[in-house]
Parts: sequence; C-alpha cells; structure tokens
Amino acid sequence: MRLFLCYKFMTRQELIGQIKKKNSFLCVGLDTDIKKIPQHLLKAKDPVFEFNKQIIDATVDYCVAYKPNLAFYESLGSKGLESLEKTMEYIPKDIFTIADAKRGDIGNTSNLYARAFFEHMAFDSVTVAPYMGEDSVLPFLDFNGKWVILLALTSNKGSADFQDLQIEKSSSKLYEEVLRKSKSWGNIENLMFVVGATKAEKLKEIRKIVPDHFLLVPGVGAQGGSLKDVSKFGMNKDCGLLVNSSRAIIYASNGKDFTSKAKEESMKVQQEMGEYLNTYL
Amino acid sequence: MRLFLCYKFMTRQELIGQIKKKNSFLCVGLDTDIKKIPQHLLKAKDPVFEFNKQIIDATVDYCVAYKPNLAFYESLGSKGLESLEKTMEYIPKDIFTIADAKRGDIGNTSNLYARAFFEHMAFDSVTVAPYMGEDSVLPFLDFNGKWVILLALTSNKGSADFQDLQIEKSSSKLYEEVLRKSKSWGNIENLMFVVGATKAEKLKEIRKIVPDHFLLVPGVGAQGGSLKDVSKFGMNKDCGLLVNSSRAIIYASNGKDFTSKAKEESMKVQQEMGEYLNTYL
Repeated sequence: MRLFLCYKFMTRQELIGQIKKKNSFLCVGLDTDIKKIPQHLLKAKDPVFEFNKQIIDATVDYCVAYKPNLAFYESLGSKGLESLEKTMEYIPKDIFTIADAKRGDIGNTSNLYARAFFEHMAFDSVTVAPYMGEDSVLPFLDFNGKWVILLALTSNKGSADFQDLQIEKSSSKLYEEVLRKSKSWGNIENLMFVVGATKAEKLKEIRKIVPDHFLLVPGVGAQGGSLKDVSKFGMNKDCGLLVNSSRAIIYASNGKDFTSKAKEESMKVQQEMGEYLNTYL
Repeated sequence: MRLFLCYKFMTRQELIGQIKKKNSFLCVGLDTDIKKIPQHLLKAKDPVFEFNKQIIDATVDYCVAYKPNLAFYESLGSKGLESLEKTMEYIPKDIFTIADAKRGDIGNTSNLYARAFFEHMAFDSVTVAPYMGEDSVLPFLDFNGKWVILLALTSNKGSADFQDLQIEKSSSKLYEEVLRKSKSWGNIENLMFVVGATKAEKLKEIRKIVPDHFLLVPGVGAQGGSLKDVSKFGMNKDCGLLVNSSRAIIYASNGKDFTSKAKEESMKVQQEMGEYLNTYL
C-alpha cells in the first residue's frame, strides 16, 4: 500500500505561497557525491543520507525546493537509491521536490518512470528530455497534481549543438520550438521548463513564448550565471522562477563546519533573492 | 573492488563474430513488468530476476544481445535495481548488453551515469539522448571499450515533433543533423545509433550518412516494423544491425509454458534473420 500512502503533490498556488512566505525561490541541488562529502560522515551507516539530512536541516529555512540529481544515487547502485528514498522521506512535505532525471522514453515506459518518481519516491516533479516528442511527455502529465519540468535551453556548452539550430520556415530555434509546441501538452499548473542561467539574456524572448510558466534555472553559482540577470529578465508576476544552486551550497565546506557554511551560503542567496522579489515583482 | 572486477567490454569484431556464429542479430528486450509475468513466478524470492533468468536460458542460443529498459527496474525502487544487478551477473559474458536508459546530462553527471552502467552494472553499452549535445555524450565515450547508442530517429509517433523538423540552411532534418554531427564524437568502434524500425524506408538515406556504424533498431514485432525491410535497407557488409524484440518474445505466453514459447519465438526470428543474412550480406 506504500504507493498510495506517500502520494503527495504541491499545487502552483502552494508553491507561490512558499516563495512568498520564505521570500526565496531557491532550489538546493542535492548532488551528493560520496567522494566530496566530509570525511567524518563516512563512518555513518549511510553517509549519503546522513549528509543530505544535515544539509536539509541547515538549508530548509532558506529554500523552497530540493533537487536530487538521480545520477549521483544511481552511480551507487541499489544502495544509492535507498539513500535517496530515505532522503525523500526526510524532506518536509511543504517543500517542492524535483527528480532531476532528464528521462524521456516511449509511452508505456515513461509511465513506469513516472510511477517510480511520483509514486514510489513521492517526488512532486521530474525533469524530462523533449527529443522523443509528445507521447514521451504525456504519460508524466497524466499524474494528477504532479509536474513535468521539460528541458528547453540547458546551461552546458553542448546546448549549442542542437538546441540552437534554426528551424526552417519558422523564426524559431529548436529550443523555442520545444517551448512553443510543448506548452499545449500541459498547462501552467503542471508544466515548467529548464532554462540555463548562463543564457539570462535569452529569458526576455523566452518569456514572450511562456509568460506564465515556472522556469527552473540551473547554472547559478558554480556554473557562473548571474542571479540578478535571471531575476530581472525571467521573473513574472508570480515570481515564476526556481533557481538552483548545488555545489556552492552543499560543498561550501568539506570540514566539520559544512552545515554552518551551507546554512550561511543558502541564507546569503535567500537574502539576495528577497531583494529581487521586492524589486522586480 | 567490485568496480574493477566486473569491468567487461565487447569489441566491434567480437560482436560481429557473435552475429556470424549465431546467424542472428537479435536483441531481446528485457522489459520485465511484474504485472505481466506468469503468476506462478510471483512465489519466487525475486520474481523479476527469476523471470529474466528463465527467459535468458530460453533465448540465449538465438540472440546476440540483451537490452533491459531501466524504467522497468527503477519503477520498483532499490529492489528493482537489485533484480537488474543479478540479471547482469547472470547474462553470459559473450552476449552484448545494452542499458536502455536514454540518459543525457551535463559532463560530470553523465560521467556518474556512465560509472553506474559501465562499471557498477558492467553493461557494454548505454542508450543516450542527444538533446544536450556533445559534452553530454563524451563522458560516456571516455570509457575504454564501452559503447554509446545515441537516439537518432525513434520509433514512436512523437518522433515527428522535433526529430523530423527541417533545419535551416541545411538539407537535413534534426535527426540527420544528429547523425552527421555526432558521428565525429566517436567512431564505429564505440558509437551506434537508434533508428526505429517503423521508419525502415528512411534507412537508405541514413546509411548514406552512417554507412559503417551499427544501428540498434527497436520497433519490430509488437510495434509493427518489418524485419525484412529493416534488413534490406539497413544491413551493411558487417551486418551492422541489432534488431530488438521485447514483448513478442518475453510475453509470448504468460502461462507455465512461457519459456518454451519464448524459445520458439526467438528461434523463429533468428531463422528469419539467418535468411536475410544470407540474402543481403
């Protein structure tokens, strides 16, 4: 019966409520690498979970979302998934959770991934790659109250290889075509888009295509994007942004003070976000 | 030390050797759904592994590759991954193995996925989505002796949404651009492409772009593609094809005779493949 007991979701209004309450649109990326966590945690029974637990305790007042990237857990095999399951149980239920999995497969298989993330692990949302088109995305949107966060423009160098290709007989690049076409698959209550912070200047154009959707913005912090530019060009009347920071927060220190440093860093970002919410909202 | 003990790979020559020896280019998709396996197996300690083990025993003489789709295992959480790990240990080492995971993420994260599939689970290859570009694919190609199988043209309806878009100032559609650009990232010894069997007539054009690469062709059988057309238009001088069948073989029966039916079905496909190898090679 576990599937039903832990079915959990967060509406757009609830998410906006959290953002206003905490004066923050920070998402903390739980990209927990066993090779990078403080030495003294390695003695714990489950060092990955222990690290996550302490990071969550340290940052929970300053963020509205947590985003574990599945790769970090899968690279440890079934034990890694156990750590992730425990982490998901530990995250307070009023925090939005994102399975950064970048999945995309045909219908019946997408449905299985959706069950894994939405039901088995009780995530609110999952990142999905658009390459396989509508019938690879709809099975995720079928889950009541759950969210798809579709890759549009990613923050890495390779995003130029295909996402930036100009489409014939259209004024769009591929990523704009992805935004334009996919926004009809869902609505602003169940569909968000990934837009890399390293492309902040493009947010103006992107907001013309998807004015009301939430955008998940990775690439601030270690990857070099500017939080100010993202806020200036990307914010809409409901904020409409979740900005992710992983390494800059969770690895702020690799000593015994890692929790106080993570707390400090997340508070610093939250304060900056608070300013931009006052300025641009 | 497990990572090193189970590092395993298969060269292009070895794969071609297996195809010639078995007179087959069949890949069996281990898309094992707990809801579809025969009732009597549910009493086993690990029903998914028990099913896979018996399917492998029944089909191993007629196929050259096994392709578990990760979704089926991840949907069962950490227990599902345990079943997959046991399955991987059970598959004979002279069979090519494909992690059908359709991953694609930025560099350091792709590297973690690669470690998960190539080292932890000892797969020979993994399917990768191209949307994020070169730096999302190279980390997989960095693994000596391992293979990337890049999605080019998939077999689902939604493939038309983006893969078929015409690129400006180019005579290519997006999937052709993917083939053209990505073939320089690797070589015929470490890079294959997914081309759906439902598009067999397009294989002629695809072979002009990638004449020597192996192609993984899903969509034969339950999805309706023609094995004859795929062989006719897609085969090169080394065969160059792995054709997948999942449901038509593994769910040929859901009674106690599921192994003999799976054996029968895979033998039937192998015999047809044998003919085409004689005709077109």
